[in-house]
Amino acid sequence: MTRRMKCVVAYDGTQFSGYQVQPGKRTVQGEFEGVLKRMHKGNDVRIAASGRTDAGVHAYGQVIHFDTPLSLSPEQWKKALNAQLPDDIAVRSVDETDSTFHARFSAKAKEYRYNVWTAAERDVFRRHYCAWYPYPLHVEAMNEAVGLFKGTHDFTSFCSAKTVIEDRVRTIYQAEIEADGPMLQFRFVGNGFLYNMVRIIVGTVLEIGQGKRPPADIEALLAAKDRRLAGPTAPAEGLYLWRVYYDHENFPL
Amino acid sequence: MTRRMKCVVAYDGTQFSGYQVQPGKRTVQGEFEGVLKRMHKGNDVRIAASGRTDAGVHAYGQVIHFDTPLSLSPEQWKKALNAQLPDDIAVRSVDETDSTFHARFSAKAKEYRYNVWTAAERDVFRRHYCAWYPYPLHVEAMNEAVGLFKGTHDFTSFCSAKTVIEDRVRTIYQAEIEADGPMLQFRFVGNGFLYNMVRIIVGTVLEIGQGKRPPADIEALLAAKDRRLAGPTAPAEGLYLWRVYYDHENFPL
Repeated sequence: MTRRMKCVVAYDGTQFSGYQVQPGKRTVQGEFEGVLKRMHKGNDVRIAASGRTDAGVHAYGQVIHFDTPLSLSPEQWKKALNAQLPDDIAVRSVDETDSTFHARFSAKAKEYRYNVWTAAERDVFRRHYCAWYPYPLHVEAMNEAVGLFKGTHDFTSFCSAKTVIEDRVRTIYQAEIEADGPMLQFRFVGNGFLYNMVRIIVGTVLEIGQGKRPPADIEALLAAKDRRLAGPTAPAEGLYLWRVYYDHENFPL
Repeated sequence: MTRRMKCVVAYDGTQFSGYQVQPGKRTVQGEFEGVLKRMHKGNDVRIAASGRTDAGVHAYGQVIHFDTPLSLSPEQWKKALNAQLPDDIAVRSVDETDSTFHARFSAKAKEYRYNVWTAAERDVFRRHYCAWYPYPLHVEAMNEAVGLFKGTHDFTSFCSAKTVIEDRVRTIYQAEIEADGPMLQFRFVGNGFLYNMVRIIVGTVLEIGQGKRPPADIEALLAAKDRRLAGPTAPAEGLYLWRVYYDHENFPL
């Protein structure tokens, strides 16, 4: 009998070539499946995640699942995995779930956060965990701009030009900026995010914060459906996959 | 004419084999002197620091000085150094000083801080910046213990057995623990610190926090002058050289 295990996983993306397995590269999936293979006496065990993350992107609440014939309790799984995973991956929780659960297809919504360090001084301790943007910013204008992403829109202007998915309509439930001294944290909850979407939104909102564009540009950009008109892709190190929602109950709506 | 420049320097110690130059190793001094050599057309320029730090130990406020024939302003020095230093070293300030100033010999006191992350869960984002100690702790007992280090004592029990310095009497002006949720920060200001002294003090106080020893043990340990009786050396990643004081004015006494 196999059991399906669901894990909430945090990782520091700094030293990974992203989430997904790539030959010859150190990836989160590769490290995780390596541990599972050892635990299953050399048999391959595939994991499925809620979605990929790019090189340098972090996760506080990535969710993965896998099927296993081993009869360990969730607590034993957590201990065994944490004992063998490298120290830049941590399993925060393990639950047994049923075979209808899928880390990717059962997801109802996701939360991403993006940290920007705005102090004039470079901070060596934050360099892998925040984007550094040492310019005077109009946070009010940024908040106004960020609010305009809420609702259902075609996000063609705010995803990588390489995106192959045809349907670029997504719904953003929550979009806000928390300021704590020189640290700005962008928070987005939505039913789905396209490739580079959060990073392009942040890159564009930072241009608004610098006064290069007015907040109302967001509406025009959404309507234009042209990636070339939006701002630059903000760097990977500020981005965190924060949480994946599998039911509507816990939605911060 | 040469000028003496004083710099306050922060570094993330994670990827350094300590402060001091060692052949074939990446060190803070080595990186810094490499930049100065390029700026001085291949001529060696030595830097002097307030003291060394070990592999993995961080600095928020290390102080160094060097002599230079170049006529850059302090602001120009700061820009030029930060542009060329690797991203795990940052120059926080530069001042021109007179030739009687010496980063090490003019120091009146130093402040060290030590971060302990006490949550049950491993935090991948703090692994290089805090020691992880997931045990229930009696913070009140620890505070009592830490207070007993204040004053002038022979610290033989609290320095590496390899210490060659004969005079192990030092004065601690301030010793306290700041708690912020699961994060404990030890803060020590003293007129000097012996090799591994802060890390052995922290290792011993954590044993007291776990109830393995009573706070009053500190007095007995100080009197015993025997390193073998104190606790273990806490790991490098929690330790920060926080500030170096060159005058009595700014002392937090």
